[in-house]
Amino acid sequence: MSLPISLGLDFGTESVRAILVDTAGKTLGLATSDYASGQITRSLPGLSDRLPSRYALQDPADWIDSASRATRAALNQASLGGADVVGIGVDFTSCTMLPTTADGVPLCQVESLRNTPLAWPKLWKHHGALSQTERMNAVALERQETFLKRYGGIIGLEWLFPKILETIECAPHVAEAAEVWLEAGDWFVWQLVGGSADTLTRSTCQAGYKAMWSASEGYPSQEYFAAVHPLLAEVVANRLPGVMRSPGQSAGGLTAAMAERFGLKPGSPVSTAIIDAHAAVPGVGAAQPGTLVMVLGTSSCHMLNATKLVDIAGVAGVVDGGILPGLFGYETGQAAVGDAFAWLLRMLNLEGFDELSRAAMNLPPGAEGVRCMDWMNGCRTPLMDGGLRGAFVGLGLEHGPEHLYMALMEASAFGLRWIVELLSDGGVPIDRLIATGGLPHHNRAFVEVYADVLGMPIEIHPSTQGPAVGAAVLGMIAAGADKSGFPSVAAASAAMSSGQGAAITIAPRPDRHHLYQPLYQNYRRLAAAIESLSSA
Amino acid sequence: MSLPISLGLDFGTESVRAILVDTAGKTLGLATSDYASGQITRSLPGLSDRLPSRYALQDPADWIDSASRATRAALNQASLGGADVVGIGVDFTSCTMLPTTADGVPLCQVESLRNTPLAWPKLWKHHGALSQTERMNAVALERQETFLKRYGGIIGLEWLFPKILETIECAPHVAEAAEVWLEAGDWFVWQLVGGSADTLTRSTCQAGYKAMWSASEGYPSQEYFAAVHPLLAEVVANRLPGVMRSPGQSAGGLTAAMAERFGLKPGSPVSTAIIDAHAAVPGVGAAQPGTLVMVLGTSSCHMLNATKLVDIAGVAGVVDGGILPGLFGYETGQAAVGDAFAWLLRMLNLEGFDELSRAAMNLPPGAEGVRCMDWMNGCRTPLMDGGLRGAFVGLGLEHGPEHLYMALMEASAFGLRWIVELLSDGGVPIDRLIATGGLPHHNRAFVEVYADVLGMPIEIHPSTQGPAVGAAVLGMIAAGADKSGFPSVAAASAAMSSGQGAAITIAPRPDRHHLYQPLYQNYRRLAAAIESLSSA
Repeated sequence: MSLPISLGLDFGTESVRAILVDTAGKTLGLATSDYASGQITRSLPGLSDRLPSRYALQDPADWIDSASRATRAALNQASLGGADVVGIGVDFTSCTMLPTTADGVPLCQVESLRNTPLAWPKLWKHHGALSQTERMNAVALERQETFLKRYGGIIGLEWLFPKILETIECAPHVAEAAEVWLEAGDWFVWQLVGGSADTLTRSTCQAGYKAMWSASEGYPSQEYFAAVHPLLAEVVANRLPGVMRSPGQSAGGLTAAMAERFGLKPGSPVSTAIIDAHAAVPGVGAAQPGTLVMVLGTSSCHMLNATKLVDIAGVAGVVDGGILPGLFGYETGQAAVGDAFAWLLRMLNLEGFDELSRAAMNLPPGAEGVRCMDWMNGCRTPLMDGGLRGAFVGLGLEHGPEHLYMALMEASAFGLRWIVELLSDGGVPIDRLIATGGLPHHNRAFVEVYADVLGMPIEIHPSTQGPAVGAAVLGMIAAGADKSGFPSVAAASAAMSSGQGAAITIAPRPDRHHLYQPLYQNYRRLAAAIESLSSA
Repeated sequence: MSLPISLGLDFGTESVRAILVDTAGKTLGLATSDYASGQITRSLPGLSDRLPSRYALQDPADWIDSASRATRAALNQASLGGADVVGIGVDFTSCTMLPTTADGVPLCQVESLRNTPLAWPKLWKHHGALSQTERMNAVALERQETFLKRYGGIIGLEWLFPKILETIECAPHVAEAAEVWLEAGDWFVWQLVGGSADTLTRSTCQAGYKAMWSASEGYPSQEYFAAVHPLLAEVVANRLPGVMRSPGQSAGGLTAAMAERFGLKPGSPVSTAIIDAHAAVPGVGAAQPGTLVMVLGTSSCHMLNATKLVDIAGVAGVVDGGILPGLFGYETGQAAVGDAFAWLLRMLNLEGFDELSRAAMNLPPGAEGVRCMDWMNGCRTPLMDGGLRGAFVGLGLEHGPEHLYMALMEASAFGLRWIVELLSDGGVPIDRLIATGGLPHHNRAFVEVYADVLGMPIEIHPSTQGPAVGAAVLGMIAAGADKSGFPSVAAASAAMSSGQGAAITIAPRPDRHHLYQPLYQNYRRLAAAIESLSSA
């Protein structure tokens, strides 16, 4: 007898991945499909006009096309029919967002707006809203808006409202035609389950982390939005229809048309969407409070569920039900991790770190005096300042490239320790660390330095499919306990992430951890010095 | 009718150079001879015992052998006889020093001491006296010795008295046998002119810059030396015989034996010795007050003559007649210049700077936010702290190796501007900048950045033989006005340095200089921050 199976759809920046996972955690099928237009950064499909340099758009038709193709391929691979799938989960990049008509047609598919760039979905990394972000922050500060506290005091350039305001100001006819504004993940779920705009499901995860929404207070006040721009207040009042639900809560059942298109069963429950990085939490079996899930990639996103809500200066987002139902989700991050290592590699004119790694690991803690601040792309947690920049200090003629490499690893680890201490000191204890994402699998030395600096073991999760498995976990939860057999989210997460092999645990070395204590204090002093130099 | 000709002997770390220059500045002969034993750093000649790692010794027999060989080769090349040479000048590395018997025999040539490393001459870079230097500084600070002011508040590891004290403590039987302690330059001049120890000529240049001597106060007090070590006081009282003279003043006439050995005329006047870097001042025609001569090499030494004596905190040495008779010689320096560039090249895994230089010179002043502190070998002027270390700050993912290179050039130039302002603000104005040494000839971009930052034209002196020509100028001055025809040191220096081709003048670009004003203030803030980080 086969176990219940869930489908996870993991929407990345260039492609979507479909995974079929059963309740024992076995991956039965896995397929990826690239978006036909990928990231649209040079010109709209079929046109030659050059887009502004900070633009990054996507084609919503690609999302449906690629997701259906990947789903059918995964089903084929598993020799399964649509009837075998009990639930569907969706994770998506965020804030990737778009304007639609009242019945959900993306404005870029409306004939008269097809050639207008801002009618197209904006990808998370679209950076067209610089001045709008600045204004929203200035007004919020002036009005002493309390919602800022939940975001470490600052509204991000990539978030929903700056992107909407950009369109209001730069393409007013598009804003006028936009009857609904929403996250791409929510739009995709809406397409799967149908229904009117008023009943569409919005994710507390996207709304909480990218749209300044909270379960207790909702969006910021009409007065605030009106002080920024009258039309922005009007959007919030009238053009954000729908119902808020947590990831894992069902948004409805699959329509017949979509079931046909995806090769699935009509009526299959579809989970509320989740941000891709956040999907890693259930995906690696970390649905318990107190477990920090570190998604280590080009940048790092660290997520933690907790049973209570506290304001901690510098913690970017705390959302009730933001990652899983019934828990407060805390999100923190480091702005350059893999990116910073790739940058150092280019600087040092090297092909890879293998050789350097051996030399670096023979160095004592502290890289013989070389110290680094890894803010090459700004500091996310806790300083929330994208304008900060990195440093190497303590450089002497006696040092070589291996010292820079070691110092960079140590800076990254010190930055994580800062975050862990911030959360613990703020009343959100952390008792377990799980590393996932691409980096830990390629660079063991790096995780060893993390463990030594933190003085805690770090489990490297064996799967690189954390978010996709997490989406499948959410699909299973949406299917309900009677179909899945799981009494809780934590049980589903633990069971469904278990089939990916054993985690490798990197233990801290006590002697090195001991030596890192004063070095961490030095790092904090360096951070203060670099911060004050930057503001000078 | 041939013009008067002078011989300059330029003693470097690995070899000695002999140059024959006439009063019109024409180089008639030039030859170099390597020391047979070079730098003695692994084991004494003929022995296998390994020397301690900080030792660097030389063989005094090499100095005589190589100098006579090079002199004969230069005379041959010029088809001249010894009678054609009217004077002899000598520059030498410093503080390279040795113990001798009362009649000038180096102790390493005394049979019973031949196998004792500390009986051999210590090369300037011998770093065996770490603890002795620390103690001499501690005692001087405790006693608030005023002589410290002339040296920016610190006694150097490479100076005469720490080296003597090292021998007193580590090889007492050598110290007991040492009837005379002296600089290698002074010893060589003594060998050329003969006479008793009591009449040997000591150079005010070496004594002033490396032995805490001043024309008005002599050596530090007996009380100070006794507080350091009773035997050190005894050395100063009894084992430093001789008479102080300025470079350019005659130390006597060549003995018959040495005339025979060198192929020169007996009785030829020999100038008092000068430190090799300082010989560049007359060697590039910069004997006028107000001209800063920058010897840019692995490190940089900047020398300036002035008509008055002022104490300036951070200026390492001010010596009456220290460079030329009748003027106060100011010495400042930057600890890593060519060395820092070579280090960056190794870090960046590049063969040379040619390609990077083109990219760097297209950058605006300020290297697009990357800032450097070039203290990779400590800071000489003005902080006099060899323990300081360098830094790069403002690093972003958007930066490449060319930004590091540009920032390093700018740091070096800012460091020079700091020195120029320190001297000017202290009452010693600078109205002309001359660059010499190896670096300016190989790296034009570097000198352009210097000129832009300083806002002053920089003359690149065409000769790389600055010190050797300077030694020849001093030999001509020692010969006297009746033989040379020169009414003054400045006239001799100007005429004899003129035959080496026209200087290339690099003019500052006003638009870039303007942009460098606030950037220099940023550099000073960075220096303060790095200094305070280092002491934290």
